[in-house]
Amino acid sequence: MELLTRKIEEEGIVLSDQVLKVDSFINHQMDPHLMKEIGWEFARLFKEAGITRILTIESSGIAPAIMAGLALDVPVIFARKRKSLTLTSDLYTATVYSFTKQESNEITVSKKYMKKEDRVLIIDDFLANGQAALGLANIVEQAGATVSGIGILIEKSFQPGAEELIAKGYRVESLARIASLKDGKVTFAPSRQIDSIIAGGY
Amino acid sequence: MELLTRKIEEEGIVLSDQVLKVDSFINHQMDPHLMKEIGWEFARLFKEAGITRILTIESSGIAPAIMAGLALDVPVIFARKRKSLTLTSDLYTATVYSFTKQESNEITVSKKYMKKEDRVLIIDDFLANGQAALGLANIVEQAGATVSGIGILIEKSFQPGAEELIAKGYRVESLARIASLKDGKVTFAPSRQIDSIIAGGY
Repeated sequence: MELLTRKIEEEGIVLSDQVLKVDSFINHQMDPHLMKEIGWEFARLFKEAGITRILTIESSGIAPAIMAGLALDVPVIFARKRKSLTLTSDLYTATVYSFTKQESNEITVSKKYMKKEDRVLIIDDFLANGQAALGLANIVEQAGATVSGIGILIEKSFQPGAEELIAKGYRVESLARIASLKDGKVTFAPSRQIDSIIAGGY
Repeated sequence: MELLTRKIEEEGIVLSDQVLKVDSFINHQMDPHLMKEIGWEFARLFKEAGITRILTIESSGIAPAIMAGLALDVPVIFARKRKSLTLTSDLYTATVYSFTKQESNEITVSKKYMKKEDRVLIIDDFLANGQAALGLANIVEQAGATVSGIGILIEKSFQPGAEELIAKGYRVESLARIASLKDGKVTFAPSRQIDSIIAGGY
């Protein structure tokens, strides 16, 4: 997605060959017009998927998810993160390990807001090792509902998350794919469709 | 705001005479159309205030804030909550005590995203004791910027936050005002403008 890759080029800060900081337009300060365009793009990509609900995770997933919810005309749920949890029977829970923070969080969704008929679009800001997306997908499946797609703003394609999700059969749509952060520089990967054409996948 | 009060009447759950649960449309599941209307209403209320930036706090403030940011065409920052903090010189910080959770959190905003020329609209979901809004206002003032208004979705008018903020000179606009949650029932207060007319304040 042109607008997002341009923003990353202009404002992203490469902190190491693993970490890209996008605090000025996604993770702390947010650009509302960019978020709207992202929401509309997810709606375009998933408009035939019969989405009935969007699931994201606090906090950086909320803005793109609410815009996609507006465009697709479906409710949006944000999973809550908790350090530890007194289990209650009202909640679906999953454990998500963060490699960046080196800590585990419980994520929770109220059983009231996820039904087995639901076709769920999962949205998150980053996809690196895929732990958050896998945790969210796990919650959808605990509810007996269907993961109809995973929409990601920025995929770090040099980390294993995207491949793992695709291998499990999930449809992953990443608006920007980063091949490398080496030498303090962002190198983009082609979109997955173009990758497939190059690899003769069509 | 008619649409919000109607939602509260239809879906709000009175847990005690202090606590109203709005998990089905604000705090966990979110209604994107309601959020859009709320954003547009804040933009209408503050369109003459010269707002240059919106400040909210993770997580429930983000959706209404991003919609208001879209309508007012300004960037949106969400303050981050931390249990405790290693102070760094890059951050403005304030301590916010939650009466509900009986714990203190540090809230932080990067100095990069708040300038002394800024006219800031603070947005939050609930206003009860006013601790979060006061913490956010404190951060704006640390930056030498101006708090041009405080936009609240649901004000619990029987708690002291709104009066305290107004006494300090802040302009507070609450889209729904709740006079009481007694007897398991939501009783709304008139909007503050109507209150002033009744009290002969004009």
